[in-house]
Amino acid sequence: MRTDDRPSALAGARADLNLDTPTLVIDAQKMEQNILGMAGVAESRGVTLRPHVKTHKIPSLARRQTEAGAAGITVAKVSEAEVMADGGLDDIFIAFPLVTERKIRRAIGLAQRGVRLILGVDSRRGAHRLSSLAGEEGITLEVRLEVDSGLGRTGVPRAEAAGLAREISALENLDLTGVYTYRGAVLGDGSPAIDLEEAGRLEGELMVSVAREIRDSGMPIEDVSVGSTPTSKHAAGVDGVTEIRPGTYVFYDRMQAALGVCSLSDCALRVLATIVSRPRPDLAIIDGGSKTFATDVQPKAAPLNLAGFGHVVGHSGAVLQRVTEEHGMLSVDEDSDLRVGDTVEIIPNHVCSTVNLHAEVHVLAADGGTEKVRVAARGMVK
Amino acid sequence: MRTDDRPSALAGARADLNLDTPTLVIDAQKMEQNILGMAGVAESRGVTLRPHVKTHKIPSLARRQTEAGAAGITVAKVSEAEVMADGGLDDIFIAFPLVTERKIRRAIGLAQRGVRLILGVDSRRGAHRLSSLAGEEGITLEVRLEVDSGLGRTGVPRAEAAGLAREISALENLDLTGVYTYRGAVLGDGSPAIDLEEAGRLEGELMVSVAREIRDSGMPIEDVSVGSTPTSKHAAGVDGVTEIRPGTYVFYDRMQAALGVCSLSDCALRVLATIVSRPRPDLAIIDGGSKTFATDVQPKAAPLNLAGFGHVVGHSGAVLQRVTEEHGMLSVDEDSDLRVGDTVEIIPNHVCSTVNLHAEVHVLAADGGTEKVRVAARGMVK
Repeated sequence: MRTDDRPSALAGARADLNLDTPTLVIDAQKMEQNILGMAGVAESRGVTLRPHVKTHKIPSLARRQTEAGAAGITVAKVSEAEVMADGGLDDIFIAFPLVTERKIRRAIGLAQRGVRLILGVDSRRGAHRLSSLAGEEGITLEVRLEVDSGLGRTGVPRAEAAGLAREISALENLDLTGVYTYRGAVLGDGSPAIDLEEAGRLEGELMVSVAREIRDSGMPIEDVSVGSTPTSKHAAGVDGVTEIRPGTYVFYDRMQAALGVCSLSDCALRVLATIVSRPRPDLAIIDGGSKTFATDVQPKAAPLNLAGFGHVVGHSGAVLQRVTEEHGMLSVDEDSDLRVGDTVEIIPNHVCSTVNLHAEVHVLAADGGTEKVRVAARGMVK
Repeated sequence: MRTDDRPSALAGARADLNLDTPTLVIDAQKMEQNILGMAGVAESRGVTLRPHVKTHKIPSLARRQTEAGAAGITVAKVSEAEVMADGGLDDIFIAFPLVTERKIRRAIGLAQRGVRLILGVDSRRGAHRLSSLAGEEGITLEVRLEVDSGLGRTGVPRAEAAGLAREISALENLDLTGVYTYRGAVLGDGSPAIDLEEAGRLEGELMVSVAREIRDSGMPIEDVSVGSTPTSKHAAGVDGVTEIRPGTYVFYDRMQAALGVCSLSDCALRVLATIVSRPRPDLAIIDGGSKTFATDVQPKAAPLNLAGFGHVVGHSGAVLQRVTEEHGMLSVDEDSDLRVGDTVEIIPNHVCSTVNLHAEVHVLAADGGTEKVRVAARGMVK
């Protein structure tokens, strides 16, 4: 774990920002480095980059990713796709099985608007619904088969992949063009992995073998799409992988730093919070809790064993030990000079779910200019 | 723990609702019973009820609570207060220390609009800022002193309460009218309590003794405000307590049912989700994860030891074991008949933080009518 947490470029400037807290501040320069860095990984490995925009949920940032080389974007929800299409994104992969008539009709509506749309499918029932509704509208939907590579969530089991691919290929109005998976930092036995190289390699090799089997059965699929922020680099190195879909890298976060994927100083997004109470020498209360910091990556959970709900920049003794809805309990050194009214800067454990809690972010440019940007797809769960 | 989970009144109707999932559905009849029930508790104990509206964040529901007898409302944030004032609420307690100029000015703006506003204070520094800014505007702010009664977050320590009260009373433009605390289901040693009667009694007795000491020092404070959903009934029974501030009771949730405060069938809010994948006989994936179900009340945490991230109504073998951002992993009996496309109804572990993740709720009336209502103060963290 790299523990570099030099204050960000924004640290000096934030006193002048006069922002109401708690709020999210993005260092534009760090973000740009992150965007270019992952574009470079994809280019050097000869794969396309299709970032998952669930991390930021902001169309203008998605456009910056495509300008910097991404071939298109990935989303999880039709509602996210709609927001992104409204924001000018025109090549969207909804990497989630759509199985209800209502959602499929909304997706078809996007395709009819001219968006190049790719849909995920992982069940016979889902495939039939897609086929039937696409048929009603007289269009053909591009689909990719999702395969489980060890995470144990959506995705057909490996052994059933070729069989389901054959059924999908036989359906009218569907064009099966690829396979995809999401494994993340998970090893072959399903346990969380610190050995990201092995996790990425396993992910890539499995999907390449699935694609080969499907092609050998006479279905000429092209796309083999894999990867998360921690594993993309390694999975992309497997011959036959064609696309990576990392998300978190745009900002990075404390979890990624703990995995060794970045340093804390690469983290482009920080939560600014204010000390509102100092009830004891060893306790400082900030104005944000579980409605400000996501709690899905809990302290002390294996394998990262993070201390607290975020990294407090520049206060080595401070730990965000507990959160209630609107209060954050910072344990501090007894001689801490943090006073009521002071501001602290915290790198969240998990940035994706943290951004989703906020209506807006403040993007701070290198020249000191700030721009308030709405998180347009926040809360788009449908 | 009462485990009654008869399907809600909405269960029969939901197939007809044709709602996109995941979404929140409120049974209006149950909610009304909950609202009247707590109003009855307050009336029978001779205390006022000032519900915390952070649970629903919806002005029309806050108005229903005041129509049913609540004397006013409680919020945690100035931004919540602004939304509620815009929605017609005119008696608001911001039970959170405001310490920055920006926030205090916004609060003063509310008072100048004619809202009866009460502010929390728990530090000398915060009190001086309030006094100074109120003085600039030529108004007097009503304040209550927050005292820590065992939760270990904001609130002056018991031993320092009377001293700080004296300092506050000496400041211009502040009118100290009471004391308040939030203890919740916490015992004297700071551990989570199942013995709610003891927790409530300790909370009430401590605050009554604080108020007595302050009055004995010559400050004629009136309000002694306490209570959470699990402890309100017991704290209100302590002679000298004047007000309770429960929040969750409006909907109740799985955590409250596990505490024995309500039954599962009292829970008025449920998450509707769709099975999107059935990769294994013992696994069903729903279309909602940590961006749909709050993760601040984790499974297996003491003392409740809840199984999973919510109670799956009507499927006794189903447990929402794991969540990622947009996926929920339901372990199910191998002979479960849940199929891709089916809908499930889930009572969240913690309803307050769950509502905050959603843009809207659907309120289902007893006559079958439904109304979509915006969660107007969602994400109002500032």
